[in-house]
Amino acid sequence: MTTIEELESILAESASAAPVWRHSTALERAAWLRAAADALDANAAELVAIADEETHLGQARLTGEVGRTSGQLRLFATVVEEGSYLELTIDDADAAATPPRPELRRLLVPLGPVAVFSASNFPFAFSVVGGDTASAWAAGNPVVVKAHSGHPRLSERTAEIVRAALHAAGAPEGSLGLVEGREAGNALVRHPSIQAAGFTGSLSGGRTLFDLASSRPDPIPFYGELGSVNPVVITEAAARARGGDLAAGLVGSFTLGAGQFCTKPGVVFVPAEAGFEDAVADAVTSAAGGRLLTDRITAAFPEGIAHLQADDSVSIVALGADGEGARPVVLTTDAAAVAARPEVLLEECFGPVTLLVRYSGEDELRAALRAVPGSLTATLHSEASDDVSEILDLLQQHAGRVLFAGWPTGVAVTWSQQHGGPWPATTSVHTSVGATAIRRFLRPIAFQDAPQHLLPLPLRDDSITSLPHRRNGELRLPERTAR
Amino acid sequence: MTTIEELESILAESASAAPVWRHSTALERAAWLRAAADALDANAAELVAIADEETHLGQARLTGEVGRTSGQLRLFATVVEEGSYLELTIDDADAAATPPRPELRRLLVPLGPVAVFSASNFPFAFSVVGGDTASAWAAGNPVVVKAHSGHPRLSERTAEIVRAALHAAGAPEGSLGLVEGREAGNALVRHPSIQAAGFTGSLSGGRTLFDLASSRPDPIPFYGELGSVNPVVITEAAARARGGDLAAGLVGSFTLGAGQFCTKPGVVFVPAEAGFEDAVADAVTSAAGGRLLTDRITAAFPEGIAHLQADDSVSIVALGADGEGARPVVLTTDAAAVAARPEVLLEECFGPVTLLVRYSGEDELRAALRAVPGSLTATLHSEASDDVSEILDLLQQHAGRVLFAGWPTGVAVTWSQQHGGPWPATTSVHTSVGATAIRRFLRPIAFQDAPQHLLPLPLRDDSITSLPHRRNGELRLPERTAR
Repeated sequence: MTTIEELESILAESASAAPVWRHSTALERAAWLRAAADALDANAAELVAIADEETHLGQARLTGEVGRTSGQLRLFATVVEEGSYLELTIDDADAAATPPRPELRRLLVPLGPVAVFSASNFPFAFSVVGGDTASAWAAGNPVVVKAHSGHPRLSERTAEIVRAALHAAGAPEGSLGLVEGREAGNALVRHPSIQAAGFTGSLSGGRTLFDLASSRPDPIPFYGELGSVNPVVITEAAARARGGDLAAGLVGSFTLGAGQFCTKPGVVFVPAEAGFEDAVADAVTSAAGGRLLTDRITAAFPEGIAHLQADDSVSIVALGADGEGARPVVLTTDAAAVAARPEVLLEECFGPVTLLVRYSGEDELRAALRAVPGSLTATLHSEASDDVSEILDLLQQHAGRVLFAGWPTGVAVTWSQQHGGPWPATTSVHTSVGATAIRRFLRPIAFQDAPQHLLPLPLRDDSITSLPHRRNGELRLPERTAR
Repeated sequence: MTTIEELESILAESASAAPVWRHSTALERAAWLRAAADALDANAAELVAIADEETHLGQARLTGEVGRTSGQLRLFATVVEEGSYLELTIDDADAAATPPRPELRRLLVPLGPVAVFSASNFPFAFSVVGGDTASAWAAGNPVVVKAHSGHPRLSERTAEIVRAALHAAGAPEGSLGLVEGREAGNALVRHPSIQAAGFTGSLSGGRTLFDLASSRPDPIPFYGELGSVNPVVITEAAARARGGDLAAGLVGSFTLGAGQFCTKPGVVFVPAEAGFEDAVADAVTSAAGGRLLTDRITAAFPEGIAHLQADDSVSIVALGADGEGARPVVLTTDAAAVAARPEVLLEECFGPVTLLVRYSGEDELRAALRAVPGSLTATLHSEASDDVSEILDLLQQHAGRVLFAGWPTGVAVTWSQQHGGPWPATTSVHTSVGATAIRRFLRPIAFQDAPQHLLPLPLRDDSITSLPHRRNGELRLPERTAR
């Protein structure tokens, strides 16, 4: 565990690194991000072996996750080079206006040292150099990571490898700090040096840290992804047309990674009459669960199921294959019970379990959907003949990503991804995955009547035209430069 | 005072209006914003007369403020029509990727009913239909305003006039609610219907509301502008070259509106040796103060000055003209005292007072600047011969707008304005003035593999090309349509 003295020393290094990151050019930061990505890829075999020992997630999944993580670092290098994230804006002076208008030039600048809290379920993509770290770096901030207790050796080794790569690429010492232990994590989010925090984890842990961040003498933004039941709606027409395929798809999605994805479909609204439960029961019989990530999650899984089963409306539809670790479970209830007791029936339960909610008619479905807490995703399976406009409007109000004819597990890291949603899915109106995650770690500054040589580089006349920018209200693309 | 029953009824109307606003087109919202602006202008004489009775700010200033406020509403109509604020983004499907990538389309959508807390010092521009309301409407949200107790009749009359205009333009009932009283305000920010809040006011009042918003079972974003001392730095070379002009400019700025601007220069770092205090003493003698906005502010002004004078380092430089209301005051202290006791010497004091801080050499100046709390603005007066790079870097870390050779009072409402800064200037990494203030009241949604007819209008193939958007990472301007 990191002591308070060690934490102070790590944060002092981070504070020393902050001005170097703040003044770094786009080319420098892009090179640092790519150096980190290359180091991950070059050391993937060693890292995956450690990760598999600590998480039981398996080589194939973990190897894919390394690629996703290095790809994410490279995407942010591209984002930095492209330059739109700076939101460069000029309004020219206007002496004829009443009152006369000064020249104003605006851009986004980094906040300063960022705390990142790792998740257990993605030991690469949401951990030491995962999306929060990549986007905080891209914005120009050093990062101090709170390692997850589920993979401590992997966290340390990843940090060592990436630090060496950053050092070789010219980034300052203090670019990537690492602390361990709950006490250190709590102290981190309260520390005056830390200017923002990113978090992926449980509702209770995230709420505690959110409250610590918000109750500081100087509150800081806390970008937390806390929990999500990811509702799925299947219309009667869809269940009748392709119930078997939907059942197989659902089972594949809710058991993926032993049901430990934050986008796991946890509650599925199914027509009462269409025989969909039988189709799911058939599909789940041969489905495997697996060892869960940590002792705490392993203990919580049967407790969560027992908690649901304690409700009179809930019964078991079927179990999956009996193997090592957690066995998949499909439960069922009805829409009236969900509408009446959402706090009991719609709590996120980590692991390979999903709850089918039988509805009779759209009124009952709508009433139950209104009770669904904010989620990362909402999925609709319907047929062209269905009028889904009202259902879709409801789903949009409860989620950050709306999917059609697919399954929510699997989050593409792209420019238009949105990984976030109304509370408790996230604590903010921003995404934690995809290019725009960078906005979380930036703040705007405007310069009024500044001499050219005192402006930040991107705002000067000789560089702004080579970047996307807005001038007097008009959006302008970069002028192509001769190569 | 609004009772809790009345509040519930107002919020029920607002909740009914929310889907109409959410589904409104850009053209509709732009028309509603312009209707509100036109109604303000058409009724300016009546409104200014009420405002002058309630605030003593004078006809000229108030008339100008109406124009600024209607102009602000029209700017947001333009922002809505221009469309960049939607952040439209498409990533086309890629079946060849590993794993195969779905189609993703992303845009920003409104949050739902927004609470706006009016300020006393701008009874139009930061009140019932001021910047927070205009930007929340532009984003597509109904608004419930907590009226400021300093101008209750003006608030009611403004709301009446604007509601009639919105109704005539086709906007729904419940687009603009108004509540009065502290209890109603506190209940407002805790109410489940309210999805975000905007606030301009005092540090203590803002902190209370921020804590209420953050401690909700479902925390909401609270965008508060709480307090700012707006540091000014004058280099020795500038003081020697144009001390008289700078003194006159400073006096004009800190006494503007009787010193009740949130951008008032409250602390001015001046070279100890250059005789600048004498120049200010000369300039202030004939400067008028004026009646302050409310009884509370009137009582707090001498208390704030007494609080500063209780510090041994502080003495009076000069007083302004003795007239009706508050008399301008210039105080002085030294940089070592400021660095040692910033919590005493750098507290915002509303009214016509400023504190000159004598420094000897840049080391002393830098140490004192590090103690300055986050501010809306920071101003530098230097000569071309000065090396100001380190000072400027410090000022940028403490402010959201950095001015050169000007004065911070006066905030142009433009695309590149930034009105916000590190805590306690604001509680967020966004501006409350200017085009990008709209981002505060929006959240992203991504649509995965959606059929065209189920996408929101701007994301469909037949409209996205007529709006700024990004496709597969490439920023694209709207295609010109034939007219």
